[in-house]
Amino acid sequence: MKAIPEPTLRRLPKYLHLLMEWRNNNINYVSSQAIADELGLDAIQVRKDLSVTGIVGKPKVGFDLRELIRALCSTLNWNNVSEAFIIGTGSLGSALLGYKKFNDYGLNIIAAFDNDSEKLGTKVNGIEIFPIEKLEIMITQLKINVAVLTVPGDVAQALAEKLVSYGIKAIWNFAPIHLKVPDSVIVENAQLSHSLAILTHRLSKANLT
Amino acid sequence: MKAIPEPTLRRLPKYLHLLMEWRNNNINYVSSQAIADELGLDAIQVRKDLSVTGIVGKPKVGFDLRELIRALCSTLNWNNVSEAFIIGTGSLGSALLGYKKFNDYGLNIIAAFDNDSEKLGTKVNGIEIFPIEKLEIMITQLKINVAVLTVPGDVAQALAEKLVSYGIKAIWNFAPIHLKVPDSVIVENAQLSHSLAILTHRLSKANLT
Repeated sequence: MKAIPEPTLRRLPKYLHLLMEWRNNNINYVSSQAIADELGLDAIQVRKDLSVTGIVGKPKVGFDLRELIRALCSTLNWNNVSEAFIIGTGSLGSALLGYKKFNDYGLNIIAAFDNDSEKLGTKVNGIEIFPIEKLEIMITQLKINVAVLTVPGDVAQALAEKLVSYGIKAIWNFAPIHLKVPDSVIVENAQLSHSLAILTHRLSKANLT
Repeated sequence: MKAIPEPTLRRLPKYLHLLMEWRNNNINYVSSQAIADELGLDAIQVRKDLSVTGIVGKPKVGFDLRELIRALCSTLNWNNVSEAFIIGTGSLGSALLGYKKFNDYGLNIIAAFDNDSEKLGTKVNGIEIFPIEKLEIMITQLKINVAVLTVPGDVAQALAEKLVSYGIKAIWNFAPIHLKVPDSVIVENAQLSHSLAILTHRLSKANLT
């Protein structure tokens, strides 16, 4: 598979969300211009982005909406659901446990882990919370590749190392630190502070603080 | 102020977190090489990124750590705290209310809004939940510029339009839709599905699903 540039990858879910909305409105064909107009992007950019799916629009008609949705899901790998564990059930971890949409996005969270003894055995959104000590055996036995890390920064590195030693291949990191793991391990950072940096900087440029 | 490229802006909080860790370990001078090594980046990239702060490292000594921290905070505008409202107190909104670090990042959430009558008047992490109907008067009277939008996708656009009409100048959007607002309004999207897209795509390339 050809490597897709990261900015393109980040836009693909936008297209997918929009197309799904339109599908619900019984639209059958879409043009890159219409998508660009709706999302405030450039039509050439949209056409280039969508070309990574391998789908080609028909002249004057545009893209077959359903075909494009299928191709986007496939490019994003959202047809294949990976089972995942979530480590840390503080406020952010609990919120993610309550978020039912991850399944649509290719991630099925099947168990949660925490070291707070009061939480053990309880369920959030039907997902049981296990003690951290169970991580090794459950990762091994259930052949889990993906971990969502929502623990405080000061314990995140030690936990990441444990996860990798237990066989975890990909970490979705919400902890506010840079994780050092072997190159073979996939780390995607979802740190809110990075997004907030953009917002506060723009605010200061607009003299709104 | 010179416009800073977005990828650079997204890296600045990483540098800041690392430098703050190092400050706690009583380190006084740092080189861009040491920062690059720790974060798995290129030293030339780090030097270029840090140049936006206006701080210049001394040959053979490197950057004054505390001076660099102050300059990064100032570039990110994290010295000036903006007061903000959060709209929607579902699982994600509640998690954000419980997140005490936003204050360090220049955002002070002072009230929350929801249309669930059972939540009204209750507090999350000391922050009171008000009815949506109070938004207009409270935005006007308290001169609030920033709203954090954590409502479901199907009501997000209508709410964003209301917020803008009440005077909101910047929206930190967690709703899974593209918001259409006037160009003068700052929108920063913090949609988890975009980050997840990168993760699931990398997983598929590594044949791990």
